[in-house]
Amino acid sequence: MNRLVEGEWVAEINIETDDDGEFERQEQAFHDRLGTDAHPVEAGRYHVYISRACPWAHRVAMTRSLKGLDDAVSLSLVQPERYDEGWEFSDAHPDPLYDADYLRELYVHADPEFTGRPTVPVLWDTETKTIVNNESEEIMRTLDVAAHDLATRDVDLYPEGYRDEVDRLIDDIYDPINNGVYRAGFAGSQGAYDRAVDDLFAALDRYDDLLADQRYLAGDRLTEADLAMFATLVRFDHVYHTHFKCNRRAIHEYDHLWGYTKDLYTTPGIERTVNMDHIVRHYYVSHANINPKRLVATGPDVDFTEGHDRDRLPGGPPAALL
Amino acid sequence: MNRLVEGEWVAEINIETDDDGEFERQEQAFHDRLGTDAHPVEAGRYHVYISRACPWAHRVAMTRSLKGLDDAVSLSLVQPERYDEGWEFSDAHPDPLYDADYLRELYVHADPEFTGRPTVPVLWDTETKTIVNNESEEIMRTLDVAAHDLATRDVDLYPEGYRDEVDRLIDDIYDPINNGVYRAGFAGSQGAYDRAVDDLFAALDRYDDLLADQRYLAGDRLTEADLAMFATLVRFDHVYHTHFKCNRRAIHEYDHLWGYTKDLYTTPGIERTVNMDHIVRHYYVSHANINPKRLVATGPDVDFTEGHDRDRLPGGPPAALL
Repeated sequence: MNRLVEGEWVAEINIETDDDGEFERQEQAFHDRLGTDAHPVEAGRYHVYISRACPWAHRVAMTRSLKGLDDAVSLSLVQPERYDEGWEFSDAHPDPLYDADYLRELYVHADPEFTGRPTVPVLWDTETKTIVNNESEEIMRTLDVAAHDLATRDVDLYPEGYRDEVDRLIDDIYDPINNGVYRAGFAGSQGAYDRAVDDLFAALDRYDDLLADQRYLAGDRLTEADLAMFATLVRFDHVYHTHFKCNRRAIHEYDHLWGYTKDLYTTPGIERTVNMDHIVRHYYVSHANINPKRLVATGPDVDFTEGHDRDRLPGGPPAALL
Repeated sequence: MNRLVEGEWVAEINIETDDDGEFERQEQAFHDRLGTDAHPVEAGRYHVYISRACPWAHRVAMTRSLKGLDDAVSLSLVQPERYDEGWEFSDAHPDPLYDADYLRELYVHADPEFTGRPTVPVLWDTETKTIVNNESEEIMRTLDVAAHDLATRDVDLYPEGYRDEVDRLIDDIYDPINNGVYRAGFAGSQGAYDRAVDDLFAALDRYDDLLADQRYLAGDRLTEADLAMFATLVRFDHVYHTHFKCNRRAIHEYDHLWGYTKDLYTTPGIERTVNMDHIVRHYYVSHANINPKRLVATGPDVDFTEGHDRDRLPGGPPAALL
């Protein structure tokens, strides 16, 4: 066993809420990029730790898959269930680099002072044995842009001419949608829950309208903004609707968001990144503070592959995927 | 204050599960009928305690409303939220007979040895100051049949020629549907939950098929069986789907169960018995063992009055209701 860290650990995975019961997501600690002197772009040098359950990690996994970075950037999973010790490795999902027991060992190796909540995704540099970045949007972007030369498919998810709009969209959907489901589920007061759900469904309604006339969030091109949106939508009906009480409406009941979700799901390279078993096991089992008996709900009988009508709209997946 | 009972009370409202984690509903203790020497049929003598939240009590409230028993049998509500002390009265929902603080006071007055979980509905005899019956099907039946002469409307929910079928239906839907949602929500093990949800949706699917070709469960006549079914269906999408994790499918997504639910909801005398605010407040707030933060979910934006197509089928509500 080649442990990165030995010794005791004080678990810090309690959910953070402020005085009004509003969920406050922790700031991430590592913000380097690829293509720098410290982290030059090299095939085989970087590793991504993710959970198939986590929507933030999912953006990174989709970027890697769509661009064909499988050989250049390795990837491994943590065990989907997360208990008091935080994300952990297991026989089914070992740490391929150091045979660590817990993800926190990587964090503490990268920063011996680290006392936050260890999260996925983690972009790891196997040469310097440290964390390059643990912020999902930034990892998505650096794999998309900085590591583009390593890609085996000509897929650009942050294309020139769309960049301002992609940045605006990613920012616009973060608070009400991507983080909004967590604000509802982890709310510490009825007021905080009510505000989160109002914000969430107002935003979903607005984007449902937008997607009536265009195939993707930024128009006719698939972009990083769509990956950010899809990661929440694909989990919604099985997890957020019930477990996080976002039950005003299901995604499969939306006129356009549902077709949009199926369109993305069936885009080559996406489906392989979705593991619904890991998704439902993670959420229902890991949050004893909102689901004390850890019963895993069955979820609706929806079919993400049943076909959609999005081909009627201009644009489509990158040609390199087809 | 005219207290029925003074003194200490040991709360016994823990949810009962067996060794396999299966929910076991307690047997009710009071099983007398109206029309006996002890409880002769007399207008103004009997009182019903219910919660608008409770589906079992709802059968009784619907029977009373449909038959026009409002003046003959009085009715009052308990506070929708139920805490460790059990169902309680409040300024908003006082005990009109004895100004009791808790429903358990009625139970202990009726039986000083009573140590069970005090439940609604309760059919109370104001002359003998005791509980006639606290079993919902039996109260529904005795109001329907034994108290029929007190009814101001000629509504017979247990008609000759249908009785065996009504009894069979009430029995058939009890375990998988009426109690099935509780078996899912209060399951103490994943296996118990899985069995409950499988049974529930198999039964819902079966009744959805049945209702494709007939307006009511027993055919062309509205019966007690429909009241038993409706009490579960009207609560399903707001409460059971999310709070009890019965999220495989919503009732408003069923082809025939949804129209059937709306048909019953809009049958004169039914809508006034439905208080969705009490329903959602009761469930989400009262079960800290499955919803520790007691957040009340918003629920779907469904309209029980939006119209239905059930008029195409033979039969319809009793003429006295129209």
